[in-house]
Amino acid sequence: MRNESPASGRRVPPDVVDVVVENLTPMVDGGRFMAKATVGRVLRVEADVFAHGHDLVRALVRWRQEGRRQWDEAPMSPLGNDRLAGNVVPAALGCIEIEVVGALDALATWARDSRRRLEAGRPDPLDAEIGAALLVEAAEELVDRVAPERVEGVRSLAEKVHGGLDLALLDELEAERGLLTRRAILPDEATTVRTKAVAARERAAFSSWYELFPRSASPDQDRPGTLQDVVDRLAYIEELGFDIVYLPPVHPIGRTGRKGPGNSTESGPGDVGSPWAVGGLEGGHTAVAPELGTLADFDRLVAAAAARGMEIALDIAFQASPDHPWVREHEGWFRHRPDGTIACAENPPKRYEDIYPLDFHTDDREGLWRELLGVVLFWVDHGVRIFRVDNPHTKPFAFWEWLISEVKRDYPEVVFLSEAFTRPKVMHRLAKLGFDQSYTYFTWRDTKWEIEQYFEELAHGPGAAYFRPNVWPNTPDILAKSLQRGGRPSFVSRLVLAAGLSANYGIYGPVFELLWDKPASPGGEEYLGSEKYEVHHHDLESPKSIRQVVARVNALRRAHPALQHDEGLRFRPIDNDQLVAWTKSDPSGSDTVIAVVNLDWQWEQSGFVELDLSELGIAEGDAFEAHDVLTEQTFVWRGGRNFVKLDPREMPAHLLEIRTLPPPPAASPATSAPSSP
Amino acid sequence: MRNESPASGRRVPPDVVDVVVENLTPMVDGGRFMAKATVGRVLRVEADVFAHGHDLVRALVRWRQEGRRQWDEAPMSPLGNDRLAGNVVPAALGCIEIEVVGALDALATWARDSRRRLEAGRPDPLDAEIGAALLVEAAEELVDRVAPERVEGVRSLAEKVHGGLDLALLDELEAERGLLTRRAILPDEATTVRTKAVAARERAAFSSWYELFPRSASPDQDRPGTLQDVVDRLAYIEELGFDIVYLPPVHPIGRTGRKGPGNSTESGPGDVGSPWAVGGLEGGHTAVAPELGTLADFDRLVAAAAARGMEIALDIAFQASPDHPWVREHEGWFRHRPDGTIACAENPPKRYEDIYPLDFHTDDREGLWRELLGVVLFWVDHGVRIFRVDNPHTKPFAFWEWLISEVKRDYPEVVFLSEAFTRPKVMHRLAKLGFDQSYTYFTWRDTKWEIEQYFEELAHGPGAAYFRPNVWPNTPDILAKSLQRGGRPSFVSRLVLAAGLSANYGIYGPVFELLWDKPASPGGEEYLGSEKYEVHHHDLESPKSIRQVVARVNALRRAHPALQHDEGLRFRPIDNDQLVAWTKSDPSGSDTVIAVVNLDWQWEQSGFVELDLSELGIAEGDAFEAHDVLTEQTFVWRGGRNFVKLDPREMPAHLLEIRTLPPPPAASPATSAPSSP
Repeated sequence: MRNESPASGRRVPPDVVDVVVENLTPMVDGGRFMAKATVGRVLRVEADVFAHGHDLVRALVRWRQEGRRQWDEAPMSPLGNDRLAGNVVPAALGCIEIEVVGALDALATWARDSRRRLEAGRPDPLDAEIGAALLVEAAEELVDRVAPERVEGVRSLAEKVHGGLDLALLDELEAERGLLTRRAILPDEATTVRTKAVAARERAAFSSWYELFPRSASPDQDRPGTLQDVVDRLAYIEELGFDIVYLPPVHPIGRTGRKGPGNSTESGPGDVGSPWAVGGLEGGHTAVAPELGTLADFDRLVAAAAARGMEIALDIAFQASPDHPWVREHEGWFRHRPDGTIACAENPPKRYEDIYPLDFHTDDREGLWRELLGVVLFWVDHGVRIFRVDNPHTKPFAFWEWLISEVKRDYPEVVFLSEAFTRPKVMHRLAKLGFDQSYTYFTWRDTKWEIEQYFEELAHGPGAAYFRPNVWPNTPDILAKSLQRGGRPSFVSRLVLAAGLSANYGIYGPVFELLWDKPASPGGEEYLGSEKYEVHHHDLESPKSIRQVVARVNALRRAHPALQHDEGLRFRPIDNDQLVAWTKSDPSGSDTVIAVVNLDWQWEQSGFVELDLSELGIAEGDAFEAHDVLTEQTFVWRGGRNFVKLDPREMPAHLLEIRTLPPPPAASPATSAPSSP
Repeated sequence: MRNESPASGRRVPPDVVDVVVENLTPMVDGGRFMAKATVGRVLRVEADVFAHGHDLVRALVRWRQEGRRQWDEAPMSPLGNDRLAGNVVPAALGCIEIEVVGALDALATWARDSRRRLEAGRPDPLDAEIGAALLVEAAEELVDRVAPERVEGVRSLAEKVHGGLDLALLDELEAERGLLTRRAILPDEATTVRTKAVAARERAAFSSWYELFPRSASPDQDRPGTLQDVVDRLAYIEELGFDIVYLPPVHPIGRTGRKGPGNSTESGPGDVGSPWAVGGLEGGHTAVAPELGTLADFDRLVAAAAARGMEIALDIAFQASPDHPWVREHEGWFRHRPDGTIACAENPPKRYEDIYPLDFHTDDREGLWRELLGVVLFWVDHGVRIFRVDNPHTKPFAFWEWLISEVKRDYPEVVFLSEAFTRPKVMHRLAKLGFDQSYTYFTWRDTKWEIEQYFEELAHGPGAAYFRPNVWPNTPDILAKSLQRGGRPSFVSRLVLAAGLSANYGIYGPVFELLWDKPASPGGEEYLGSEKYEVHHHDLESPKSIRQVVARVNALRRAHPALQHDEGLRFRPIDNDQLVAWTKSDPSGSDTVIAVVNLDWQWEQSGFVELDLSELGIAEGDAFEAHDVLTEQTFVWRGGRNFVKLDPREMPAHLLEIRTLPPPPAASPATSAPSSP
């Protein structure tokens, strides 16, 4: 032996496992944040799993509730190009630990190589002995994981292989692949990579929001609305098909700096002020404005909604009017200017004289942050489980991460919606740190190109792991340009886009269904006579109302799992730039809805939409019915390319259910993917 | 004070910095591996840096040689959408620590807001006082970082601001932005995120390889070639313009199982065997085959190459012929079958009877791994600094990561090229763990679509951070299909594609320049009469040789920094599917080359290529010269859309230098970007 090697002093690393597990998804910022999941829904986990050389690998995905000992697991299946996928299904709310465990698969490698040698007519006489040993090992790895008789089956296969190998035996082995993927992987032969997800309840993933101003909910022209009027309005909202009723702040409104109609800095004694100027003599964030009613009224509203299977969502606006009790009791919670005055909210050159922002870095940070957490817990205590957070992007990220985790520790069912129409990176950070749902730029995505690009990104971009979009055609702050011309066709098309593209959506009513379309100023997006500063009375029975359309859209959403998930969105080619077409399918592939929207509010548009029949579970030559739930029309279609024509004066959109026709006598087998377990 | 808050017992997190730094690039697998950099070249570092609200941020990128105390730093500039970029320039070989440090920029925020208030005619009387204080603070942050008189300048600006603020003063401040970006950022106000890179020498990033079989380098028909013949061949290779001469293994070749011509399992006494069947009675991986010469001859070859500014690259093929000394001395380093025999190399149903693979998990792993490291260090000791590693993908990843880091610890100038034509994930893993350059799929990318997709991915995909492509039109193992028909036009177009698209490329000669195009079998990719098993003699002076074209292409590569970088590649639209057009620019934007290749070896093709004049530094209306270095033709072009026509029988490609014409009397200002510092 030569010993003069120039490397003789070098240290060699401890023995290593050859399998690589990398590019695990979902993974948010290398595990710094949690991916989003939903109780009872499949979370698809993928990873690249491979080794050097030609050996085959196998992998399991394992998961457990944080803090529990017991792991659940599922085998992972190859997708090609060394990528594997497996399904996690969270059983309970809260944080879930997930890991992918990969190892070499000596048995599968041996089976592949033996088959190649046999098929090439160059069998290796040692293959039987080697394979039998591997099968005995595999049987051990199955003990306590499958029924004992199945373990026995593998052992008897080992004996047969030992007796002599042929292609028939390898076929028999191949038929047991489903069983063999369930073998245990021992830690010392495995590479393990971890990620985390947080499982929310179903409504975080699928929800239909209806926003309204209680003070405009009065059926009586002579007085403003109250919380009791909202109770009376619930039947109407239920009929429309919404499940979340979201109220702007219900707290006392400040007098100092109170805004008049149209955001005027002048206000008279009859002016009601902006609900977002929170706090007055009557109390702050845990009080109910006397003009709306009492805390008991609020409790009754929550109960009445619950009785209908609906929920009340409250607005969290962490700011204070100059009259808020905090200003008197905790002056230090506000920013002071060099001249000693409290700084009002400002986005230069705009100033908001009726609002003081809080100083989240105040010396009494403990006091302030606890107080704010207390506000949320107060309303949780009054039965609220959904919060829409106003302007979260103007408060520190660390504050929200702390607040949301503190609330969810005891109430993991609470849902937070982030109202941030700001820079994309900021919106994504808020979603990462814990907001369950996020407002989007949908409100300003009007053209086919914009809509397709944006929803492709939302459904399939990297943010899909943690950002649940909630799309709104309008809000009290935004009368979108797309609604200011075009009347009913525009409203219907924006409604169908929102409700058909996104599992979470909302409208601000009744101004939406009543087609309010007048801006305060030309080119602006504020409503003329904005309800933010004025009380209105609405004629819900107005003949121009599109409430029937809204109700049909929401009914379709409830009936079709396809519309309750975002990941199954696929835009479809259609040869007309005024028509947007897409399909949505649920993860099991068993339910699909087709949508086509005419973006042109003036003219009839037509084109050929190209479908993927395999996605619809329809054989190439078969006819099928496309039933439009908006118009109750039924079209008989055949093949992947079908003609559509939409006249906006009648109905600017198709929302189509697929109804397969009875198969012809010599039917071809169904091509639809089987449902997941 | 109310104390009944339901949150009163909750803990509040320690105070936090509001700035987020995320999505730092380059970053490989969250910092598990190092990004690739080059000494003296700019490494562009980017990150998302932002805070909540409307405050502006600033950031620095800092870097230092691993183990050093002193940091270099550079300010980062906004790219829009909250992304910032800064340039790192490694000064020495080896690992570099890099960090991005982000903080709020109270001064810039104040300046922006003050300007908005002044412009809106609503000045805030306190702005002067606040701004003056911020400027005094900024001056402190500049002390010891810029010349004292510049610090004084900021102080006097503070005094002027204190005396009264107006737009002119804000303009003056804006003019000093370059200075102000150089302020220090204190750790307690900063968020810091780290990444790592490894700086290699220039030749790792820009190299032209020439592979040849020494035994086929004899000028004498009557005897095979030797290392001395390679010395004599250097002048020719230099004339062709290559800087790396890569030799297949030069070690003794085994007799047992020796392959005959055409990979025949039968060989006669006159057969020379495959150089990759390493090891015979005369020695193993540290010996020189007697038929090629001696170790002293090898040393002379290395010295002769160095004298011409060229380098010798050796092949690392970690496997053994049955006659290798290791087989006798370390039987345990090889895998044994149940019958006690040593397993030969196999990729079923193929078997390589002349090669035993090593068992990298042998019980004597320390002995084996050290021996292999010793092989590399032996050749380093003989002046070799570039290694092409044969089949690295059949050895454990952990082995290569260890070996490369051990070699580079003492010899950071060593360059490793990975010869892995295997699954993409495996090739990328090898690049991540330390290989400086990697073979690619270029050899099988023939159509315009394939070429554009693939090089887009190589130049701009996520792998660009760590994967340096080295592209080869041919290798001893691969006579690409694209070369088997079409003769000279095909060879020239593949050459121009390789050398013009990739900063690192190579050819296997002299069979390439002599247009060898006969496969061993129809549809196959092995060479007929492959040099892997036979000695050949080449007529370098053959009139069919394209050596002149090769020389011109390589000369252009040396003359133009644009061709020495991969990141500046941009494919250009051209309205003909047989024509591929692209530009390459160097990072400073001061040098650009235009290339157009006709993929059709039979017919003339023409089309209009669309250029981006701003990239070329040419004003819209100006004429310019496009000078073709292959044909010495010069075209006068004007505007972004110009006609090209390529007849493959003459020359199937343009390689165009831009020559601007003297400006007309009333010249518009040059639009070219300034050179980087």
